Amino acid sequence: MRDLIIIGAGPAGLAAALYATRKRMDCLVISKDLGGKSNYAVRLADGEGPGAIRADELVTIYKSRLQYLRHSHRLAEVKRLTASGGTFTCALEDDSTEEARAVIVATGTRLRRLGVPGEKQFLSRGLGYSSISYSHLFAGKRVVLVGDADRVLDSTLELSIHADAVTTVLLAGGWFSEDLVARARDLERVTILEEATVREFRGDEYAREVVLASKSGEQTIAADGFFVELAPEPNTDFIGDGISLESTGSLRVDGTNSTAVPGLFAAGDVTGNGYEQILVSLGEGSKAALSAYRYLLETGRANA
Amino acid sequence: MRDLIIIGAGPAGLAAALYATRKRMDCLVISKDLGGKSNYAVRLADGEGPGAIRADELVTIYKSRLQYLRHSHRLAEVKRLTASGGTFTCALEDDSTEEARAVIVATGTRLRRLGVPGEKQFLSRGLGYSSISYSHLFAGKRVVLVGDADRVLDSTLELSIHADAVTTVLLAGGWFSEDLVARARDLERVTILEEATVREFRGDEYAREVVLASKSGEQTIAADGFFVELAPEPNTDFIGDGISLESTGSLRVDGTNSTAVPGLFAAGDVTGNGYEQILVSLGEGSKAALSAYRYLLETGRANA
Repeated sequence: MRDLIIIGAGPAGLAAALYATRKRMDCLVISKDLGGKSNYAVRLADGEGPGAIRADELVTIYKSRLQYLRHSHRLAEVKRLTASGGTFTCALEDDSTEEARAVIVATGTRLRRLGVPGEKQFLSRGLGYSSISYSHLFAGKRVVLVGDADRVLDSTLELSIHADAVTTVLLAGGWFSEDLVARARDLERVTILEEATVREFRGDEYAREVVLASKSGEQTIAADGFFVELAPEPNTDFIGDGISLESTGSLRVDGTNSTAVPGLFAAGDVTGNGYEQILVSLGEGSKAALSAYRYLLETGRANA
Repeated sequence: MRDLIIIGAGPAGLAAALYATRKRMDCLVISKDLGGKSNYAVRLADGEGPGAIRADELVTIYKSRLQYLRHSHRLAEVKRLTASGGTFTCALEDDSTEEARAVIVATGTRLRRLGVPGEKQFLSRGLGYSSISYSHLFAGKRVVLVGDADRVLDSTLELSIHADAVTTVLLAGGWFSEDLVARARDLERVTILEEATVREFRGDEYAREVVLASKSGEQTIAADGFFVELAPEPNTDFIGDGISLESTGSLRVDGTNSTAVPGLFAAGDVTGNGYEQILVSLGEGSKAALSAYRYLLETGRANA
C-alpha cells in the first residue's frame, strides 16, 4: 500500500505531486493526462508591460518533472474511489486497483454545454465559455450572457463596466441570489431575462444572434459576443462509497484542503472554489500535499 | 478613495497586486520592501532531477512587474489600519493616510528568537530556525529541537524518520496537543523534555551543545544540529479598531481569504495557515484579490 495517491494532474495535482516528491512520500499520480485544463488555456496578449503572470510556465516545468519520474504516475482513468477503514482504493479502467493511506482528489471540472444548434459551430467565433478574461475587449459592444448560477451575474456586473449593453439570460431551472439579480437589474446598461431557454445561435462566419424562448414567447437578440456561463461540472463521477459530495457535485474542503473524510484531501476547481486560476490551484495542491503529509506523520504512516 | 490597498509585498501581496492590476482595480501596495521573507529563502541544492519547484522565480518576476508600475506602490510602513463604515484607513509613518474600500493584509510573520547566549553567534552554524526543509540531511545524526507549539512536534515526527536521535524540548509556557506529545514520546529515537528552559548554546566554530534548565535541574545535551522552532509571530501590530485578531495574533480567513470584516481580506503566513510556502502564499494572494474584486463589484464599487 502506498502513502498517497493523487488523482488528476492539472495544476493542483502537479503541485501536490511535486511536494509529495519533495517530502519523499511513496506517491502515485493517476490521471488521464498531464496539465489538465491548463493545456487549453488561452494565452492573452498582455499589453500591460513586462512580466505577465507566468503561472502556466510553472505548470510546464512541473509536467516535465513528473514525466521524468516515470514510476510516479500512471496515465489512466480512475473508475471508482472508495474509502474504508482508513484505506482508499482506486479501481482503474483496466480492472486493476491501487491502494493508499491518503488520497488527494484534483480532477478539476469540465465545461457544460447547452447542446443547442449553432453552439459548436460558433465556438471561438463570437461564442465563448468564460467572459471574465475578455471583459475589457467589449468596450462599446453588445454582449449576451447565458447562465444557470450566480457566476453569470458576477460576469454581468464586470462586463457592465466595459460593454455598451449586456443582456443576461437566466436559464429556467437555474439558481440565483436575489440580491445579485436585483443589483444587476439596477444597472443602466444591463437587461435581465428570467426563466428563459436558449433555442439556437445563428450567424454567418461569426455568431450574430441568439434565439430565446420564455413565457412571453420567442425572441431574437443580436450582439457582438455571446458567452455561455454555465457553472462548470466537477469531475467526481468516480467518487464511491464512504465519501459524500456537495449537491453541486464538488468535494468540499476546509482551509487546509482537508475533506470531512480523514486522509482524503482535495484541491483546485473540483472543490467548487470557483476561481479557476492556475495560481490558486497550484497553491491549493501544495497545501493538500503538505496536509496529507502531516496526516500521515500524525497517524504514524509516512515513510514507514 | 481607492478600490483596494494591499499591505505587504511578499509572495501573497505580490500575487494579489498582479491580479488587482489585471482586473484594472485602483490599487495601492504599501510595504516596507518587495519580496518579503522570500528574499531570504535558502535555495536548496536539489539533487532530485530537473525542474525543482521554481516558485521563487515567479516572485522575482512579480517584483519587477510591481517595480515597473511605479505609481502602484509605496515603500512605507503602515502604522495603523482602522475600519469604519465600510472604509479602511491606513496611517503611515510619515503621518500621511491612505484610504480604500477594501484591504488585503499580507504582512507575513517574523521569526521569534529565544534571546539566549550563543543563539545569534551560532545562527547558520549548527543552529537554525526551521528543520523541515533540512530533515533528510540529518540521517544518522543527533538533533535537538526547541519549541513552544505543535509545530515542533510535527518537526519531531518528521526528523525521527531520518535522524539517529531527536531530543525535543517543550518550553515551559508553551501549548502542545496531548495526542501529538504522546505520539512523539512513543517513537524509539525520540526523547521529550517537558517544561524546560534554554539557558545557552555552546560550541566552537559550530554549535555543539545546549544547556537546559528544568525542575530536575540543569542538563547539557550535545548534538549535531539545533533548531529553534518557535511559532512565528504574525505581523499584525498595526491592526487597529474595528478588526479582531486570533489569540495568536493572526488574522483568520475562510476558504475565500475573507476575514470576518466585510471588505477586509488576508493572505499568506499572516493568516496563521502554518504552511510558510511560496506557492501557497501566491495562491492565497490570488484568491484574496479575486475575492476583493467580487466584493467591490457586488457592493457596486469597483472601477466606478
